[in-house]
Amino acid sequence: MTALTLPATRATIDGVLAEISFNEAGLVPAIAQQHDSGEVLMLAWMNRESIAETLTTGQVCYWSRSRQSLWRKGETSGHKQRLIDLVIDCDGDTLLLKVAQTGPACHTGQPTCFFRAPRRDGLKTIGERKI
Amino acid sequence: MTALTLPATRATIDGVLAEISFNEAGLVPAIAQQHDSGEVLMLAWMNRESIAETLTTGQVCYWSRSRQSLWRKGETSGHKQRLIDLVIDCDGDTLLLKVAQTGPACHTGQPTCFFRAPRRDGLKTIGERKI
Repeated sequence: MTALTLPATRATIDGVLAEISFNEAGLVPAIAQQHDSGEVLMLAWMNRESIAETLTTGQVCYWSRSRQSLWRKGETSGHKQRLIDLVIDCDGDTLLLKVAQTGPACHTGQPTCFFRAPRRDGLKTIGERKI
Repeated sequence: MTALTLPATRATIDGVLAEISFNEAGLVPAIAQQHDSGEVLMLAWMNRESIAETLTTGQVCYWSRSRQSLWRKGETSGHKQRLIDLVIDCDGDTLLLKVAQTGPACHTGQPTCFFRAPRRDGLKTIGERKI
C-alpha cells in the first residue's frame, strides 16, 4: 500500500476538501487512531483550515469548538500527533486520522480519551488495551 | 479486565446515560471498532433510546439522522454488530463501541467505511488493513 505523501500538495488538499461533507457549522468529526496499535485515542472536530494545515505540516490540528479557534494538538502539552494517514469515510462525513501519538492523548493523562466502561458495579476505568 | 455484562441492568443503562453529554439534538457520536483487529469500521450517532436498546439486546442500534428513526444495524442487510464493550470518553461526548461485525460494515460492501485516502494521484481506495 502506498503511503500519504507529506507535505501534501495544494491539489491533494483541495481534492480531500472537495470530498468532505462539512456540517452546518463547517466542521467534520475526526477520529484519531494510533497507527500501529490500532488504539482509538480521541474524537475531535476539524474545519477546512485545520485539515489544510494538518496535511501541510504533518502535525494534527483540530478546530476547538469551545474556543472557536485552531487547536494545534500538543502545542502546550507537547502531546502531539504526527499524521501518518488520513482516511475519508464512504459518505465523506467523518475522517479517520492514523497518527503517531507522543505521550498521552487525553488531557487527564490517560493514553486514550476512551477509558470508562460500564461494569456490574458502575463505570470503571479500564486499562490501556494493546491490540 | 472484567467484561461488559449483557443484557445490562436498568441501573447500568441509567449510569451510562447520566455520563453522556448529548448534543442539542439529543445525540452523541459513536465510533464502531472491530474488537479483535482494532479496525475502525464506522461512525454513527446514538440517542438515549438507541443506547438503552443496544445495552439491552447486545446488538448495536444507532439513530438515523436522515430517517429520524432507530437504525438497527444489519436489520435488513444481516451485517449486524454485536456489542462487546461500550467505552465513554473523558468528557462524555463520544462513545467507542467495541463490536463483532458480521460481514462488511459499509453499505458499499467494503469491510470498513474508511477506505479512501489521498495519494499522489488523487483519492485511492486502500485495502483492509489488519492491525
